[in-house]
Amino acid sequence: MITIISSTNRKNSVSKQVALQYQEILQELAIESTIIDLEHLPSDFITSALYENQGTNVDFNPIRDHMKEAQKFVFIVPEYNGSFPGILKTFLDALEFPGTLKGKKCAMVGLSSGIQGGVMAMSHLTDIFNYLGMHVMAAKPKLTRVNGLMEGGKITDESSIRRLKDQAQAFIDF
Amino acid sequence: MITIISSTNRKNSVSKQVALQYQEILQELAIESTIIDLEHLPSDFITSALYENQGTNVDFNPIRDHMKEAQKFVFIVPEYNGSFPGILKTFLDALEFPGTLKGKKCAMVGLSSGIQGGVMAMSHLTDIFNYLGMHVMAAKPKLTRVNGLMEGGKITDESSIRRLKDQAQAFIDF
Amino acid sequence: MITIISSTNRKNSVSKQVALQYQEILQELAIESTIIDLEHLPSDFITSALYENQGTNVDFNPIRDHMKEAQKFVFIVPEYNGSFPGILKTFLDALEFPGTLKGKKCAMVGLSSGIQGGVMAMSHLTDIFNYLGMHVMAAKPKLTRVNGLMEGGKITDESSIRRLKDQAQAFIDF
Amino acid sequence: MITIISSTNRKNSVSKQVALQYQEILQELAIESTIIDLEHLPSDFITSALYENQGTNVDFNPIRDHMKEAQKFVFIVPEYNGSFPGILKTFLDALEFPGTLKGKKCAMVGLSSGIQGGVMAMSHLTDIFNYLGMHVMAAKPKLTRVNGLMEGGKITDESSIRRLKDQAQAFIDF
Repeated sequence: MITIISSTNRKNSVSKQVALQYQEILQELAIESTIIDLEHLPSDFITSALYENQGTNVDFNPIRDHMKEAQKFVFIVPEYNGSFPGILKTFLDALEFPGTLKGKKCAMVGLSSGIQGGVMAMSHLTDIFNYLGMHVMAAKPKLTRVNGLMEGGKITDESSIRRLKDQAQAFIDF
Repeated sequence: MITIISSTNRKNSVSKQVALQYQEILQELAIESTIIDLEHLPSDFITSALYENQGTNVDFNPIRDHMKEAQKFVFIVPEYNGSFPGILKTFLDALEFPGTLKGKKCAMVGLSSGIQGGVMAMSHLTDIFNYLGMHVMAAKPKLTRVNGLMEGGKITDESSIRRLKDQAQAFIDF
Repeated sequence: MITIISSTNRKNSVSKQVALQYQEILQELAIESTIIDLEHLPSDFITSALYENQGTNVDFNPIRDHMKEAQKFVFIVPEYNGSFPGILKTFLDALEFPGTLKGKKCAMVGLSSGIQGGVMAMSHLTDIFNYLGMHVMAAKPKLTRVNGLMEGGKITDESSIRRLKDQAQAFIDF
Repeated sequence: MITIISSTNRKNSVSKQVALQYQEILQELAIESTIIDLEHLPSDFITSALYENQGTNVDFNPIRDHMKEAQKFVFIVPEYNGSFPGILKTFLDALEFPGTLKGKKCAMVGLSSGIQGGVMAMSHLTDIFNYLGMHVMAAKPKLTRVNGLMEGGKITDESSIRRLKDQAQAFIDF
């Protein structure tokens, strides 16, 4: 059982599309998965779910509890301003600490409209996840100029699909 | 004229206290400053001020415009989960791109309750700011175990005050 | 079988001492290990073992071959100038590429005479190892002001010893 | 007066070619420059110029002294194994500490045969230089697939030349 996280709250995001495609890839490998889409965070999330309100937002708590139960994560990470979306870190800041991610395992996929492919985003996230005690799989595919790799909401570029499949297969065994 | 940013939306934060003290330090050096306190971001910020709603939030637009006009920034950055607060990056994601920070200059101060002093937070931010075209001053004081350095809402530790003053003086000339 | 790397060529280094102590910890856990001490790199290493001379240095080739065979590594990493020792990266640049580290696993211990404990060194190394396809264990103990933790060439600080033992145990299962 | 550093000791490196071209660009802007080419480091550098031998290598000392005198640096940084060349950090480890780089200014150009353009190399270096007290200019051109941008030992790609010229001009005023 793997939890895939679409790491932006932008509506109808490419990240969401890639998350869905990753789910299909896992399905082909006979692995069940759930998607957590940050688009569905409550709109008053930054005041209702952080700090003194940690754990009190009834709309967010099911997601928070899911994160505590889940053991393996795939983060689909679009590059915003040279790093990960702020909302992703805000989401992490709302999880129960310590313990939500400790000893767990994750993989990452980086997306960008430009040529960096989220390389810095994934480097920063690796620091954060390791700090929180979560192991990060080494292979982190970078999908650069991601729109050019897609058609009709799906990645059609063969080489990119191959890299995602290889990662998914390796992550199952990680 | 310098803009000091208290980089969390936690209420009554230590960052806000340090921001106020930094303002006093600048005052002693005859430099005017304003504080932008992320505590005052609209609570529906993550849906009302990002992506397709960039620039349409009348409560946030004055801050957004201020960021465009300002030329020099001091970021007071508390360490959350091994990096900067998610809300700070979300705030940056809501600024006009490109151009808000390009060619400008900033300094940073890191705070932590633990022993890292925000060192990774400031490293990640430096990557982001450089990506956005903003120069970062080399000296980045790290205030570790910050609560132990303060009394009555103010840093009283002589060595920490000295480092902030040295940074402020150097930043004026940067 | 674990390979411990003392990541500096400084003579009689603290890293070497910690490497030896780590070996003892592994021994207590019934795990065999070897130490590669960068102190023993040939002195003309930078001209005789890199680039067009990759693989031609008969003094270095046994180490190079060992790195190819080994599957699990513990890097003892002293902090030099805010990152890892240059010699460690030079050593990595002399390994057969690609493939020496791909799919393998490592853990790291950071050492510093100051208060950072090699945190940036280990962040940079994690980027490099992940790039090369090697998984990095999340827990990365930071031994700050390391000389104060030692007596007679051994770490005597209980809490530090505990962290190394916990890491070693976890790394065996990683 | 600017010091350009060709950051590898590989013979006849692309970095050296780019360093020479950067020197021409500066010349057109009426700025004098010197090139330090790490190819010329003594071959026993790692034993004769570090640690207890810091400052005792008569072949290296002129370079070491030059670094102490110089105020502005441009680092031409090829990407090796996902970061900077180990020899560059070894070179930095042989400089007088503290003080060689403190309060000085630098710019960087990243080169890669692949698609990263040295982005991680320059991120790591920025951490190191800031730690040592040297300011880093925000703009860090990344020359990806650099061989395809060159002909006869010179960058001929117009857009790349433009970015180097813009950087050089901005660095003069930095």
